[in-house]
Parts: sequence; structure tokens; C-alpha cells
Amino acid sequence: MRPFLFLLITTLFSLEGFSQEPSKGILSYLDARTPKFDSMAATIWRWAEPGYLEEKTTALMQQELTAAGFTIQKAIADIPTAFIASYGSGKPVIGILAEMDALPGLSQEAVAERKPLINGGYGHGCGHNLFGTGSIAAAIAVKNWMNQNNIKGTIRLYGTPAEEGAGGGKTYLVRAGVFNDVDAVLHWHPGDHNSASPSSTLAYKVALFRFSGVAAHAAAAPDKGRSALDGVEAMNFMVNMMREHVPQETRIHYVIKKGGVTSNIVPDFAEVEYTIRTPTIDGLKKIWSRLMNTAEAAALGTGTTVNHEVMTGLYNTLPNETLARLMQKNLEKVGGIKYTAEELSFAEKIRSTVSSTDMPKIESAQTIEPYALNGLTSASTDVGDVSWVVPTAGLSTATWVPGIPAHSWQAVACDGMSVGFKGMMIAAKTIALTAQEIFQNSSVIQLATDELNKSRGGTGFKYESLAGDRKAPLDYRKQ
Amino acid sequence: MRPFLFLLITTLFSLEGFSQEPSKGILSYLDARTPKFDSMAATIWRWAEPGYLEEKTTALMQQELTAAGFTIQKAIADIPTAFIASYGSGKPVIGILAEMDALPGLSQEAVAERKPLINGGYGHGCGHNLFGTGSIAAAIAVKNWMNQNNIKGTIRLYGTPAEEGAGGGKTYLVRAGVFNDVDAVLHWHPGDHNSASPSSTLAYKVALFRFSGVAAHAAAAPDKGRSALDGVEAMNFMVNMMREHVPQETRIHYVIKKGGVTSNIVPDFAEVEYTIRTPTIDGLKKIWSRLMNTAEAAALGTGTTVNHEVMTGLYNTLPNETLARLMQKNLEKVGGIKYTAEELSFAEKIRSTVSSTDMPKIESAQTIEPYALNGLTSASTDVGDVSWVVPTAGLSTATWVPGIPAHSWQAVACDGMSVGFKGMMIAAKTIALTAQEIFQNSSVIQLATDELNKSRGGTGFKYESLAGDRKAPLDYRKQ
Amino acid sequence: MRPFLFLLITTLFSLEGFSQEPSKGILSYLDARTPKFDSMAATIWRWAEPGYLEEKTTALMQQELTAAGFTIQKAIADIPTAFIASYGSGKPVIGILAEMDALPGLSQEAVAERKPLINGGYGHGCGHNLFGTGSIAAAIAVKNWMNQNNIKGTIRLYGTPAEEGAGGGKTYLVRAGVFNDVDAVLHWHPGDHNSASPSSTLAYKVALFRFSGVAAHAAAAPDKGRSALDGVEAMNFMVNMMREHVPQETRIHYVIKKGGVTSNIVPDFAEVEYTIRTPTIDGLKKIWSRLMNTAEAAALGTGTTVNHEVMTGLYNTLPNETLARLMQKNLEKVGGIKYTAEELSFAEKIRSTVSSTDMPKIESAQTIEPYALNGLTSASTDVGDVSWVVPTAGLSTATWVPGIPAHSWQAVACDGMSVGFKGMMIAAKTIALTAQEIFQNSSVIQLATDELNKSRGGTGFKYESLAGDRKAPLDYRKQ
Amino acid sequence: MRPFLFLLITTLFSLEGFSQEPSKGILSYLDARTPKFDSMAATIWRWAEPGYLEEKTTALMQQELTAAGFTIQKAIADIPTAFIASYGSGKPVIGILAEMDALPGLSQEAVAERKPLINGGYGHGCGHNLFGTGSIAAAIAVKNWMNQNNIKGTIRLYGTPAEEGAGGGKTYLVRAGVFNDVDAVLHWHPGDHNSASPSSTLAYKVALFRFSGVAAHAAAAPDKGRSALDGVEAMNFMVNMMREHVPQETRIHYVIKKGGVTSNIVPDFAEVEYTIRTPTIDGLKKIWSRLMNTAEAAALGTGTTVNHEVMTGLYNTLPNETLARLMQKNLEKVGGIKYTAEELSFAEKIRSTVSSTDMPKIESAQTIEPYALNGLTSASTDVGDVSWVVPTAGLSTATWVPGIPAHSWQAVACDGMSVGFKGMMIAAKTIALTAQEIFQNSSVIQLATDELNKSRGGTGFKYESLAGDRKAPLDYRKQ
Repeated sequence: MRPFLFLLITTLFSLEGFSQEPSKGILSYLDARTPKFDSMAATIWRWAEPGYLEEKTTALMQQELTAAGFTIQKAIADIPTAFIASYGSGKPVIGILAEMDALPGLSQEAVAERKPLINGGYGHGCGHNLFGTGSIAAAIAVKNWMNQNNIKGTIRLYGTPAEEGAGGGKTYLVRAGVFNDVDAVLHWHPGDHNSASPSSTLAYKVALFRFSGVAAHAAAAPDKGRSALDGVEAMNFMVNMMREHVPQETRIHYVIKKGGVTSNIVPDFAEVEYTIRTPTIDGLKKIWSRLMNTAEAAALGTGTTVNHEVMTGLYNTLPNETLARLMQKNLEKVGGIKYTAEELSFAEKIRSTVSSTDMPKIESAQTIEPYALNGLTSASTDVGDVSWVVPTAGLSTATWVPGIPAHSWQAVACDGMSVGFKGMMIAAKTIALTAQEIFQNSSVIQLATDELNKSRGGTGFKYESLAGDRKAPLDYRKQ
Repeated sequence: MRPFLFLLITTLFSLEGFSQEPSKGILSYLDARTPKFDSMAATIWRWAEPGYLEEKTTALMQQELTAAGFTIQKAIADIPTAFIASYGSGKPVIGILAEMDALPGLSQEAVAERKPLINGGYGHGCGHNLFGTGSIAAAIAVKNWMNQNNIKGTIRLYGTPAEEGAGGGKTYLVRAGVFNDVDAVLHWHPGDHNSASPSSTLAYKVALFRFSGVAAHAAAAPDKGRSALDGVEAMNFMVNMMREHVPQETRIHYVIKKGGVTSNIVPDFAEVEYTIRTPTIDGLKKIWSRLMNTAEAAALGTGTTVNHEVMTGLYNTLPNETLARLMQKNLEKVGGIKYTAEELSFAEKIRSTVSSTDMPKIESAQTIEPYALNGLTSASTDVGDVSWVVPTAGLSTATWVPGIPAHSWQAVACDGMSVGFKGMMIAAKTIALTAQEIFQNSSVIQLATDELNKSRGGTGFKYESLAGDRKAPLDYRKQ
Repeated sequence: MRPFLFLLITTLFSLEGFSQEPSKGILSYLDARTPKFDSMAATIWRWAEPGYLEEKTTALMQQELTAAGFTIQKAIADIPTAFIASYGSGKPVIGILAEMDALPGLSQEAVAERKPLINGGYGHGCGHNLFGTGSIAAAIAVKNWMNQNNIKGTIRLYGTPAEEGAGGGKTYLVRAGVFNDVDAVLHWHPGDHNSASPSSTLAYKVALFRFSGVAAHAAAAPDKGRSALDGVEAMNFMVNMMREHVPQETRIHYVIKKGGVTSNIVPDFAEVEYTIRTPTIDGLKKIWSRLMNTAEAAALGTGTTVNHEVMTGLYNTLPNETLARLMQKNLEKVGGIKYTAEELSFAEKIRSTVSSTDMPKIESAQTIEPYALNGLTSASTDVGDVSWVVPTAGLSTATWVPGIPAHSWQAVACDGMSVGFKGMMIAAKTIALTAQEIFQNSSVIQLATDELNKSRGGTGFKYESLAGDRKAPLDYRKQ
Repeated sequence: MRPFLFLLITTLFSLEGFSQEPSKGILSYLDARTPKFDSMAATIWRWAEPGYLEEKTTALMQQELTAAGFTIQKAIADIPTAFIASYGSGKPVIGILAEMDALPGLSQEAVAERKPLINGGYGHGCGHNLFGTGSIAAAIAVKNWMNQNNIKGTIRLYGTPAEEGAGGGKTYLVRAGVFNDVDAVLHWHPGDHNSASPSSTLAYKVALFRFSGVAAHAAAAPDKGRSALDGVEAMNFMVNMMREHVPQETRIHYVIKKGGVTSNIVPDFAEVEYTIRTPTIDGLKKIWSRLMNTAEAAALGTGTTVNHEVMTGLYNTLPNETLARLMQKNLEKVGGIKYTAEELSFAEKIRSTVSSTDMPKIESAQTIEPYALNGLTSASTDVGDVSWVVPTAGLSTATWVPGIPAHSWQAVACDGMSVGFKGMMIAAKTIALTAQEIFQNSSVIQLATDELNKSRGGTGFKYESLAGDRKAPLDYRKQ
């Protein structure tokens, strides 16, 4: 690794002098349009639309990009709310990801105490209103710079729906081939700190296992019945023992979605949802095959039958250091968040609602974390699939007050007010500057591609979706 | 038992001569009004109202009884659809039970092939439209005879809602004391054969166990989570092992009503419904206490907490041979069902839709089964509670074509046409004749009461509802 | 059944007058030799030899029978301690069974308090010292009578080893065909009451399931290991759920014989012993096949492999009423046990060591229980196999003080003193008188054979041992 | 950490010049006595005595140390084979550990193919024959240098029995206080590479859980029985679910030692052995308390009772970088192993018996691994307890051909021939030189003690044995 990194660093230093001037234009362009993007983020935040149902959100995004001069491909990969907005032509092609879906049960006003907008409603607890808007801001800024400077190449904004839960939107986009001609993908994510250090995520697969048995009166003829719930519990039992015999970073979790209707009938149907996560795609396949065995075994041993439906499956994320170091440099140039007195007061109040023994300092919102190879996080994301087909890098910014966890009502609150909007613009600027540098020095692409091939174990890699040939679950959030 | 039975049989023979004449009046009275009661049964069958929601049914019943000269007490025991219709005064007091609720998912036309009236709707798969109407017919016939012959005593019709599922209507009526001054209770039930042989049913208790854990991101922080579903599964595990260590007639069955929401969150809530049945009320209490232990143990061993709500609880049915032999004699006098050619054709067709290796003969609808102490059936009924506080006897008649099981669409079909109505009138006549005999010879009541005291283990018995102090679950069928 | 029984009873009454005289000779012959047989029973009781290792016992038995004029076939069916002692020739052939093995851990002096002869040693807790000796007494008495009266036919004494536990001695004898030419088999068993009422026993099968996994350091490489104990526990789990779904009279029980060596190694071997019992041989085969499924399923679901070895298997016992009623009549003729003052004192003392809420009266040792079709007992015995190939009847006598359970130290104590010896001689007399009657009226054999064919479901029955082709487990008691 | 390490490194460099000369004396002293120590190691290897039964081994060790001028304290901490050999007086006190026990089932000749010396016998699969002898060599060399140079202070050799399995010998020594006045402890361990990098081990606790139930005839009265094996299985079930909810580095493993005697008796006794390992002592205590809950819960939920016996418990090992860096420097000075042609041939042959996809190069035996903070290994050792009360450092040397795993017959073979002896002398030299340096510059002790206090979380630490007050299990290897 050393020689490679040395070469890289040398390269980056030589890029440095070249890139400094143009960045100023981009930064001032975005500063001037901050109120407009803040307002767009606030609008999407209020809509808080579920995965694959982001109809108003995608319409607003497409309208803004059209107005800015992009060409739109709608409903790509047979997903109504997915789209590509393009500007320019030819190589290199740089893609920016824009997510848009909200989370159930997290509806919340932009205040520092629990107060739902709509009881039980959706809320942007993962900040995808910021993610989408910030990426669009970056794309528009890059387009403006390309236009003004006659830059060759293509900038694309990917409107990617349904990242959360069983959505897996990008999986279906990757499978449809819409990233095949892309040279680099940039993205970001809301967080409680500022960092462009790369980290891998866990490969991930979710399926429903449906057991069928024989109904019988549970008192009069239980010997005639075969309980489908027995099948589910037997599967769970064997899986719980399997926990001892998998690599320790593996995660296996399940819930029983259907466990019988009424206790006086032996249940003839039961359903369990399983998620498996593990660091590598190969490891995932092995454990998955053992999971299949537990399901078949449970059916055999309880006199029931079983089938399963894969709901979603995600690749682990491959870090790309070539791109990540570029992004880190630009993030450091842009800098962190400075709170106003009012924001500071909000920040202190909302932090007080979180009980943790391990809170980061509030000042950390202002600073950028040093670059490090962070290793593994226990999360999973459909960006993983993208990262196996295109060199990909992302960053996180402190849209959430330090110490606020993802998927919390506190995160929703931050995502709907100025603290979140400030973090969003830092991301927009960093992505725009990074794209600018890549357009200016396409050797970065070669280095990044070489690194990707190495990570994939050679040039023979062929992407196969973990979701198999199932269609995108467009109705997974419908009720 | 021998001396007692001998005395009984002697007594019954001496009753015999006395009772033969008056029965003719009752039989002809009912024969004359058969079309009216058939029509009433058909109307209630079409309504097919859920437990505790039998509003139209109870109104129609009360209207008929009022018209016949009964006095109505409405909404007894705080149950809106429960009522008592009374005629006469003083001792003895004879009660007749009239059920009225239908079953979910069994909506069906009165034809010999599966054809719902309303998809997914309720249907009278247990024939309570017949049960209610037939009992009312009997009560009116008895009243008429009492009136014409100046008979002393009281005849009561108990409109008893919500027998099915977690209804347990009569439990709450018994708890409210509305049977305290009754000397004998008579009832019947639709079936596929004609019999007045007594049999016990299983004592029965149902509860929901609700486990609470600690939610956590199932991938990022599973060690911080405590799965409520673990609690449920641990309880089930220990209960499944307990099956080896209970009397073999015991039945334990469960379904998981809530087993987590989504697999990427450690579930902080899960719910399992348990039913226990066993031949004796004492046995039930012991096993119930062990079930409580498994619940507490499961919580302790999985780091969760648990509470439970008793949904319903029913006593085993105490046979009363004194009354049962009287009823058998009268059933034999009334005789079985003769099919018309059309009914026979229907019967053959509907039997062909049932796959069974053990079908009774179609002719058995015409005959009465010989008296026997049938022992234990694996069913449970809220008549059990009544049978512990008043001497109680019932019969079943072949309202369903022989071989048709309860709670089937085939039963619904029979309950809505002439075959079912014929069976109903046989029951009405048998109950009326039996009540008549009791009024005529009140030494029967003393014998029946002595037998009840013996069965209850002495005179110290004090009824305590297995439902504790919970209110009747008036909304258990609401959606 | 009625006509058949009527015929039978008629037949038996006609036998009655014919048989009364000769019985006196047999009774006085046995009375005269009581001290000799008591002494023989005491000797075998002291030896208390394990199953298939009854070397001294079988030698003594053979010596007594040889001395009495029987011809011995040694080591039949390749079982060293099994033998047949024969006297006479031609038809009919009547066999008497003589058991001989003791039980582990029950060594006990013949006193009314717990006091082992040898700590942890074997003891005659099932009274087979009496069983064997009493049967030999009967055989010798019958032979004497045949000899004196020139009776045609053959009397045989079967020395049948290893009834207890996984012995199943008679199964291998039946399989070897040594009962093929026998017309009736008579036997008895020590008990705490006097009865010749027939009852069925449960069909029964025992196997060891051996799981193999992959050993691994449980801390350093648990993911490389596959625990064989996981396999065992998964099988048990599925079996525990299966308990709900078998006929309620079924019994399934298991112990884990090997569950790993040390916790810091993932166990690569584990072994569980299963017993299944259920009322019918057909039912047993079905449940056994489901048990096989749980084993295979457990292996599949835990990444292990499994094989199994059937240890033993027994047929349910077919009652033969023809023979049973004869035996009952003779038992009633012989009468029950009268205690001396000393025996009564012993009886009271030993009863006080048993805690039970349901003790029979001590006087019941004197009486004979009325004949009844007792139905099913939850025990199993290798007499079951015999009863499927020859009409078979047995009785029990009160060798144990009423209230003393089988397989207890109290039973051992009774089996070694006068109370047990008295019960033994009652059995000897009853069997001898019954054999005598059969020799005198061979139409009994035809009736008994017809009844057997009916019970077996026709004449097509072909015996197949549940033990398959495994050899008798001659070393199952070796240490 | 940085400033501290900088200070340390500076200090060590200043030590450097001072220490170089005297080391030559020690090295040549040990070189001259290599044959003697090889022979001692070979003798102990052949004896291969079990834990706490190392009688000949400890006698030989004590004899050698006495001959070299050490004073012996025998049978310290009530452990017959434990001893302390001392030379010198006053501060500083440096302790060297010497282990001595062998492993069951690993008896093996010193050849490159599987060939037991004694079938099923013990063998030195963890190389404690080398460990003990090498440490004694180091102690004698240091004593000789101290004597020649009038060095102030005390050198101690701790003869520490029973490291393997449930031995935990050092736990009892630490509890007895025999390390209380020691300033630094040095040790080593056989391995397949040369390294002084520190690494932590897992805290560890082992206990037997004994469940008691109620025996009953499994067919006749299973409802009267309560299976102790149910208790064990319920505990295991809840523990298997707990695996999801503990830190991922945690290890939980169990075997069932007693799972019932025979399947026709409901088992009234069952025993399961549990081991828990996790990175920190605090974490261990928390998980242990949850394990106790699963045991109690299992008893409650199955109607059984449970008690437990802690077999052993070990602290995690606290790395001491101050000492480790000193040791690394000396190890690098001493250097690795050079094979003769014959040894190379042996090495290649024995490596061919190991199937691994990840074999280190054979040449790695010659080199020293670079210093690194290795982090966590999944092993546990009773050196952990020592490391919490005295600053402790150890090294490993390539006594086993690279690629040979511990606890293998291949390791036994290496431990009994020249390859193992060469590794032993490298360790002896490194320990002696390190002790020499500490005597020469006692500021090392202050630094090491400060570091220990920091690691222990301050100065308030008070050692409490995880074994509680149980006595050393002196008979854990007796048969």
C-alpha cells in the first residue's frame, strides 16, 4: 500500500496548485444561493415522503434541475421517483447521489423537545431532505462552473429513492446499468461530525420466510395440526445457535411478522423477517446459504413447508482512498459549522434530551476530523452496490448537533432548521469542489479505477444484485 | 354411583306417567308456530352479528318475547346485548339459554358449495341463530302452557351474547349473579347428531403476555438492546418443554400476536396469546401458575419485563345426570330429523365437500344416540361457568348434515336452511318438555342440586370468575 | 363383540364343571413345595443380576428344571442366558414366561427402611426373581400333573432375559421364531394388587442419535466450529414442539448421553437417547418417521451430521380376553394374600415411607380385583411382541404391599421376603391351573387364536421386529 | 498517550549505552549451559505431568535452583507443586514465571508424524517443559551476574502449576499475595514466531451449573416429573439468544456434562459447564450476572432448582508497554532461530501435516516481528491476574515450526527436540537481559508501575479473585 499512497499523495499535491483558483467561484456561487436551497430543504423536510412514494419531492428536484439547465431522464429502472439529471457530454462522467426518503414514526417539529407534526407520521430522521438538496446544490454549482469554463465531460445528479429499510433503491439502479458509464460517484450523508474518512459498511440481505402448516382446532385435534409458527421458532432457534459460529462482526436479526391469528387454531401460516449483515459479500453468501438450511430444516423438522422472498440485499461499501483523500482536502478547505447564539442554545437544549455517557464536545461541529481509514461501521447502505461498480467517495457533515444519533426525533428536528441547513451547504461545497478537481485532472479517475479493481480482487468482477431478479419493492411503505 | 342412579331411575319412571299428557299441548303449540320461528332464525342468520355487537339480534329477540308476554331486563351485567326475559313468579326458576353471536370469515350462502354472502364477513358457523331462536321458541311454549294451566314458578330466557372466542359472555353474567336464584338451566347446541348425553368440557383460560425490552439498532448496537421477542420465545420454549409434564388431556396453545416491527431494530415490544385447557378447574389453576412462572422466567433470563392480561376464563362443564336423563327421555320422545328428497340431495352434495375417512351415516340424522356418560370433550364453553352455579343440562340436534364439522362454511349453509331449522325445532320441543317436567315434579330440582353439590366437592363452593375483575371485552370483535 | 363374548362365556361355563377336580392336585403339589421355591426366589433376589448377564440365575433355573424332568435348550436365539425347558410332546404347546433380570441402583435389604445391600448395586425392583421362580413352580406343577395323568401336549418354560431398559430380550426370541409353534403363552408380573384383567401396553422404540460436528477452539475460532451439541439441542427443540401434535397418549422422552467434553472446545460429538411410546404399532411408525425428520433437520440446520442406532423396540400388548377370563376365574379360585401380624407390621411401616395422596387400602392384598377391560397402561414390555404371535395372558399379584410402586427400593424389599413369596405362589398356582384347563379343553386355543387374528386385523399379519436386524444388546448392562 | 511514549522512548535510549556491556556475560553464561538446560527440558517433556500433579517436575526444578544457590519456599498458597526460588534481598524484586503442566490426550514422540508415546497420555502441547526450563535458565543466569557484580535486589523464580484448563494456578498464587512485593514480572511462552509485542487476553470465567428436578417414570407419570435437563436446555436457549446482545468480542461456550441417565426416567439431575470470555473484567462481571439470571430463570420456568460452582476465573492481561519495549529490544539483540539441515527437513515434513490456507513462511523462525500493539487475542491465561498486580511483560519464541498451532501433537513433537530447545534458549536470554536492565535502571519500575496504575483506572484497585474463595482445584486432572 505504501508506494501506491505515496504516488497518490504526490499526485494530489501537484493537483493542489492547479485547483485553488477556480474553487472560489464555486464557493461564492453556493453562498449566494444558500437561502434558496435552505428553503428547498425545508419544503422536502415538511413533506417527509416514504420510500418510493417521494412524488412531490422528486417533482420539486426535477423542476429545480430543469430550471438550472439539466436534462431529465424520468422513472429510470422502472422506479417512478428515480431520475437522472444530466449536463454536458462525454467523458469523464461524474455522478452525484441525491437521496429523498423519510422514516416512519419520526414526525417531529423543528424544536428541541419531542413534538410530532403528525402523530405517527414520517419524519426526516436520516436527513435525506438535506442529502437530496445539498447534492442538487453541488450539481448546479458544478454545472455553472463547467458552463462558464467550457469544461468537457458530464455532470449527473442521480435522484435515488428509498434508501431506508427494505427500499434498496440504488441496488435496482445499479442492476439496471445506469451507473455503467460513470467514472466517479460522489455523495454525502448527514451526521453529527465532519469527516471524509472512508469506511466500509456491512454487506446486507433481508428476506421474508413464510412457513405453511396445517390448521386444526388446537384443543380438539392438535395432533392433526402442524404449526407454521413452530417452523418459525425452530428456524430462529437454529439461527440463535448459529450466532456462535459466524465471524463476530456478523449481525443476524429477525422479527416475527405473522405468528398466528388466534390461539385456539393451530396456525397454518407464519412469517419471519431476517436480516444478515457481515463485512464481505463472500461471507454474506456463505452465511446466507446456512440461513437457507435453517429454514429448510425447520420446515422438515416441524412438518411444515417454507418459501422465502428476498426483500433487499446490499453490497458492503468499498472505500476508495484516491477519492476520499481529495474529498478530505476539500472538506478541510470548506471548514466546519459555526453556531449562532440561538443555535448554540438549541444545541445545548437538544443534547440534554439524549442520555449518553459518551457525548462528543459541542465544539466538534466546528472542526474536521483528521483523515483515517476508519474501518468498518455496522451500518449498511445501498451506496455499497454503487461502490462496487464505480469509484465512490462520500463525506458526512455535522447537520445534527454533536451527540444526536441518526433515526431519532432529535435528528428530525435538526434536519428541519438552520443547523442542518448549514451542514448541508458544507457538503454541497465539498462535493462541488471535489468534482471540479476531478474534471480538472482526469488521472484521478485512473488511480481511483485501479484502486477499485484491486479492491474487487481483479478485473473479472461482474455485478450481480443480491436482490436477484425481484422488482424494486415499490409498495414497501404503502399501508 | 350405583345406588344414586338407581334412585334416580326409579324417580324418573314414576315421573313418566305423570308427564305424558301435557306434552302433547306443547308439541302441537310449537308445530303450529314453526314457520314463524324458521323465519326468525333465517333473519338472525342473515345478520350474522359479531359477539357483543348483536344489536339487531337482541332487539328482535326481545321484541318477540315481549310480544309473547315476557318482561325484559335489558343490558344485564353491563353488557348491552345481554338480557333476561321472565314470565311467572316464585320458585322454581328455570332458565333457558339463548346464544346469538356469529363467527368471522365464515360468511356463506345457504347452498352446498362455498359461496360467501360477503367476502370475509361473519357467518353463523356455530348455529347460534338456531340456538337463540330455538330456545325462545321453547320458552314461549312453556309460558303458554304455564299460563293455560296456572303453573307456579318462573320461566326465564337468558339472552347470552358473545360465546365465541374471547367473548366468554356467560362468565360475566354468572359473575354478576344473575343465575343465583335459578334452579335449573336448560340449553342446547347445533350439531351433526341428536344426543342428550352429558359430557364435560375443559376448563379454559386465555391471556395475553406482553414483553417489553430495549430497542436498539440491530446492527450498530445490538448489545445495547434487549429483545422483547426473545422474551416471548423463551417463554414458548419453556412451555413447550412443560407439555411433557402436565396431564395428557391438557391443551396449551399460543400464537405470537406481535413479534417486532422491522428486523433492523431490536424489538422493544412483543405479545403472545396463550390458552390453557385442562379437565378440572383445580388443575387449571396449577398449570396457570406454572405458566406465570415461565413468563417471569423468560423476562428474567432475557433482560426484559412482562405483564399479562387475562382475556377470558371458563370453568369445565359439570354434567348433571339427573337433568340429562330427563332430557334424553324427552329427546327420544321428540325423535330425529326426516329429510325431504330435496334436503337429502343437499345433504349428499354438501357431505361430498368434506374429506374425512370417518363420516357418520346420513341416516343418523333420524336417530337419537343412546344415553351414555360421554366423558370429556376437548372443547370449552362459557356454559361451564353456569354449570357450576346451577344444575345444567343440554342437548345437541342434527342441525348440520351428519359429518359436517362446526365452524365450517358447510355448517353456516345448514344453519340457514330447512335442515337446520328442523333440528332447531327438535331442540325447542325437547327443552320445553323437559322444563314442563321439572315444573311438574320439583323433586327433580332437589336431586339435581344434590348432584351438583357432590360434583363441586361439597357445599362450600363459592364461584370466582377466572376472568378476575376484568370487564367483559365488549370490543373484542370491533375492528 | 357381544355374540363372540357370549359364545366365549358359554364355552367357559361348560369348561367349569370339567376342570374342578384336577386343580386340587396342583394346588396341594405347590403348597408342599412352597419352602423350596421361596428359597430359590431368595437366592436369585440376592444375586440380582443385570440383563443378559443373569448367568447364575439361568444356571439355577435350568438345574431345577432339569432335576424336575425337563429337557433344556440353552442359549436360544444367540442369547447366552435365554433357554427353553420342555416337557411332553405334540400339540397343544403351552409356554410360560420366566423373567430374571434386576435393576441398577436399587440394591436394598429386605427391610422397611432404605438400606442398600451394596451401594449403587442392582436390586430386584421389578420382582423378576419372583417372576422367574413362580413361573418355574407353575411349569413343574403342570408337568407333574401331565405325567400323572398322561396328558398329551407340551409344556414349555421360556427363560427370558433382559426385560428391563434397552434389553428387550423377548423381541429377539420372537424374531428367532422360538414361539412359532406355541398355542398359548401364560405369564404374570409382581404388583401391588391381584388382577387378571387384560390391559394393553404402549408400543415402544428407543434409539441413540449421534451427531458429529467440527471441533474448534471455542474462543479463538468458534466460527470454524460446528457444535454437535447444537444438533442435539435443535432436535430436542423440534421434538418438544412436536409434543403438541401427537395423540395425547404418546410419550416422548430423551436424555443427553454425551454433551461435549470441555466448554473451551466446540463439541464435535454429542449423543441423545430417545424413547417413543404410543398405543399402536402403526402410530409408532408414523411418529418415528417424524422423529427421524427432526434429527435430519437438526443436522441440516446446524451444519452437523447425524446417524442413529435403534436400541430396542417393543410391540403394544394385545389383550386376549379368551385366556384372560380363564385366568381371572382361576385367580379368584386361588384367592389373595393374608398377612401374618409380622407382615402386617412390615406392610404398615413400608407404606409409611411412600408419600401419596392416593394409597389403596392395605386389605386389598387379600382380594381379587373384578374383571374389567382395563384399557391402556403407560408401560411397555417385551411381552408385547409375544402377544402379537401367540395368544397371551398374564396376571399380577400383590407381591408388593398395596401402594408400593414398581422400580422402588420398597419393591426390592418386598421381593426379598415372605410377602413377595406369598404373592409368587398365588401366581404359580393361577398359571398352573390355567394351563391345566387349556390342556383339558383345546377349543380354548381355537377361540384364543381367532381372537388374536381379529386383533391383528386379519390373518395376513407378519411379525417384523422393531429392532430391525440388530443383535440383542448383550452388553447393554456392562460397565 | 503520545507524550508518555515519547518520554519512555527517550528513557530507553538513554538506558541503551549503559546496558550493552554486561549483556555479553549473560549470553555467554547461557550458551555454555545450553546442553544442561536442553536435557532438563527433555526430561520434563517426557514426564508430561498433569496440572497440580507436576510432582517430579517441581522436584527437579527446585533441585536445580537449590544447586544454583536459590532459597526455596515450597508448596506456596497451599498448592503442593507451587514454589518460589529466591536469590538476593531487598528492592527491586523481579519475578520470573515458570510453568510446568502438560495436556491430556496429546502424548507424542518427537517425530514429524502422529505417534503417541502413551496412547491417550499427556503431552507438552503447550511447551510448558520449555517455559519452565527456559525461565529457570534465565533466573540462574541473572543470579550469577548479580553475584559477580554485587547487584542489589532480589531475583525470584515462581514455579507456577496448572495453567491449563480449569487449573488457574496463578489465580490462587495472586490471591495468596505472593506477588505483592514484586516490582516486575517477566515471562514468555512457546509459539511459532518471535515477538515481544504486548497483547491483551480475554477475561474468563468458568462455572458448572447443576440443575435438580423431580424424577418420575417418563411413560407412567411424566406429569409428576420435572426434568433437570429441561432446566439446562432452557438456560442454554436463553444464553443463545443473549449472544446477540453482548459485545461482539465476547465468547460464551457450554457443554452439557450430565444430561440424564436413561430416557425412561425424567432426569432429576443435569449439569452444564459454561465459559464466558470478554475483553474487560468489568464487562465480564456484567455478562456473568446476566448468565446467573438465565440460570435462575431456567429453574423458575421449568420447575427445577439450580446452583453453581465457579471452577476458575481469569483477569484479562494488561499490556505493559514500558516493559514490553525493553523486552522487544533485547529479543532483537538475541535474534531468531537458525535451523540445521536436519531441522529444516523436520520442519518441512511436520508443516506438511497441517492443512492451512494461511501458513507463515518457514524462514520467519529466524526473524523477530516488529513491535506493535497487537490488541486483543481470543485466548485467556492466568498470567492475566498477575498483570493486574505487578507490571508484567512476556515474549513468545518460535519453539514450534512456523505454522504449527498450539495444543497439537505437532507442537508436542517440536517441544521435545532441538527446534524447541533453541527457541527456549532465545527466551531465556531475552528474559535474563531484560531483568538485567531493570536491575540497572530502576526508573523503569517507576514508569512501569505508573503505566499499570493508569491501566487499572487509578490507584484504588484492589484485586479480587474471580474464583472467589474456592480452593485451588488440586484434583481437576485426577481420574
